[in-house]
Amino acid sequence: MISISKPTLVVDEAKTRANIKRMAEKASRNGMNFRPHFKTHQSADVGKWFRDEGVNTITASSVSMARYFVENGWKDITIAFPYNPLEIEVINEISASAQVNVLIESKDALAHLNQHGANGVSYFLKMDVGTHRTGISPSNVALIGSLIDKSSENHEFKGLLGHAGHSYRCRGKEEIKQVYQESVEMFAALEEGLGFRPYISWGDTPTCSVQEDLSAFNELRAGNFAFYDMMQVQIGSCDTENVAVALACPVVSLHPDRNEAVIYGGGVHFSKDSMEVNGAPYFGQAVQMNDSGWTVIEDVYLKKISQEHGILKGPSSFINNLKLGDIVGVLPVHSCMAADLMPGYITFEGTRLTKNQKIL
Amino acid sequence: MISISKPTLVVDEAKTRANIKRMAEKASRNGMNFRPHFKTHQSADVGKWFRDEGVNTITASSVSMARYFVENGWKDITIAFPYNPLEIEVINEISASAQVNVLIESKDALAHLNQHGANGVSYFLKMDVGTHRTGISPSNVALIGSLIDKSSENHEFKGLLGHAGHSYRCRGKEEIKQVYQESVEMFAALEEGLGFRPYISWGDTPTCSVQEDLSAFNELRAGNFAFYDMMQVQIGSCDTENVAVALACPVVSLHPDRNEAVIYGGGVHFSKDSMEVNGAPYFGQAVQMNDSGWTVIEDVYLKKISQEHGILKGPSSFINNLKLGDIVGVLPVHSCMAADLMPGYITFEGTRLTKNQKIL
Repeated sequence: MISISKPTLVVDEAKTRANIKRMAEKASRNGMNFRPHFKTHQSADVGKWFRDEGVNTITASSVSMARYFVENGWKDITIAFPYNPLEIEVINEISASAQVNVLIESKDALAHLNQHGANGVSYFLKMDVGTHRTGISPSNVALIGSLIDKSSENHEFKGLLGHAGHSYRCRGKEEIKQVYQESVEMFAALEEGLGFRPYISWGDTPTCSVQEDLSAFNELRAGNFAFYDMMQVQIGSCDTENVAVALACPVVSLHPDRNEAVIYGGGVHFSKDSMEVNGAPYFGQAVQMNDSGWTVIEDVYLKKISQEHGILKGPSSFINNLKLGDIVGVLPVHSCMAADLMPGYITFEGTRLTKNQKIL
Repeated sequence: MISISKPTLVVDEAKTRANIKRMAEKASRNGMNFRPHFKTHQSADVGKWFRDEGVNTITASSVSMARYFVENGWKDITIAFPYNPLEIEVINEISASAQVNVLIESKDALAHLNQHGANGVSYFLKMDVGTHRTGISPSNVALIGSLIDKSSENHEFKGLLGHAGHSYRCRGKEEIKQVYQESVEMFAALEEGLGFRPYISWGDTPTCSVQEDLSAFNELRAGNFAFYDMMQVQIGSCDTENVAVALACPVVSLHPDRNEAVIYGGGVHFSKDSMEVNGAPYFGQAVQMNDSGWTVIEDVYLKKISQEHGILKGPSSFINNLKLGDIVGVLPVHSCMAADLMPGYITFEGTRLTKNQKIL
């Protein structure tokens, strides 16, 4: 196996490419533009696997991340985060060499863009389809209409953008499809109010994974599906075998008396995202790392983490056979957060995958 | 104020220096060696403020972090994490220019160190004083005695090391002092069993903050106290005014209809660590950022975070006066995790503080 001495995110390239291909084909079948969210991997190297599926338009979750991808040759990026007036200089800088689209949800934001924006930055209006985090309610036809009217030649209105973040509270395909259906109805009512149908960008991994007919919308913008994770398995978006990343961690402390082992792998590697399984906190699924893949170790999971430590819980048949220095893989609860914490990734072929680095 | 356009960790240098000085003086009053844990700040620049208090011995939570501090001139480092055989090459490399102490808790680990270690790497035995994460129970006199006997001239036994991580479950000074007292009794019983009293290194921010008499132990190894955070306020280790870091975040989305505003500042800046306040999740305390400090904004807090977004909740008198592009500070729930996520920090004087960077 690839040599590992500290927590390392291993990317299964074949699984990732299969996940990308499946979603690209779904977008194509639905006649949608595919604009995958790159916040999950944040990697120029993984981005090339999307290029291989014909992807030219992408999504980023911050101006810094957009800059990184522009520097790596991407020419059409939506920054799917509320327009931040304090970053207009960087937005103008990167829009000199790429089409940049920002999200607007207020008159103040659009006025600022109209006054300070350059280089044909375009905008989507962010809709709140039920998550109640950001965005305008689709029932607020007056505000939406006025923000469309206020677009100028310099700053084109591209369309509406919805993100059903509340689909993460679903359990099972039927609940997920219900979220999709409710959004379709919201946009239908808005269309009637506006008197025309704007272009609509749509993206969240649960609905895009389980809903076959996405043709109510024009653009597919999901991102997590490239790697998936145990949260998506619990939601019902995918199966465990679709999860394409595992954090390979050294075993550093054995406690067979309580059916536990401690791995080098904690909150600074996984993040503190957790879910509940059988009424108890759950931070990841243990897998056996092999030369070219992994296999799930039934009933062995990460039950607790602190800054650098993770506590593996499992049956004595497993714990008793562990040795100091063994490597155990863990499928993370939330791959976006775990990937963000990593300085880069590695594939089973030993290829290092570079990614966006934070800068002060 | 210092110019901020994206989430930035602002360090109040005066508060941090006061926190360091207070703990250094307490160690001195108790006749203890002061070996502060540097995992909280991970910064060579903040390390200099400790130097100014006479600190020469430090603690790191990983081999990588120890290497960073050795590269920055530190000559005596305890790696307070279970000995990881897979990293012995790096341990040997850094121990060529610094005294390195590792943590041992099994015969296998000590045998590996004895066979592969170089350059006079020494070891502490990690005691489990009640946290049940890593370490040997102090009641296991036979194992402890045998691991002391197995030390060689090359690898000196330095002493016992305890970390009362379970003090984080305390609420209030009396409960914290109780944890300390229980540990003192455990070590007294162990001393009787061994027939002598080894050197004891002790560290966790709650007990070291509230317990005046720490003289049962020889070394003070806490770390979080340099910055403190809202979790330590809740535990009872400090007051809100002692918290020395705030994440300055731009306001990007206003939702006065639900008394909320969205800031640019989420899980990739704060981590997902949270606590419960009045039965609801709580991710940080809002503060007003001024030219040289901050003041608490009563009843305004971070109620939810996702990857890049944070949702501020507060009374309408506050939310209604916010504008797009305003900066709001947030005292984090867990400063170690927030600091780990930052590429560096800034002081009110505009000084950039460099820190350890992760390397693939």
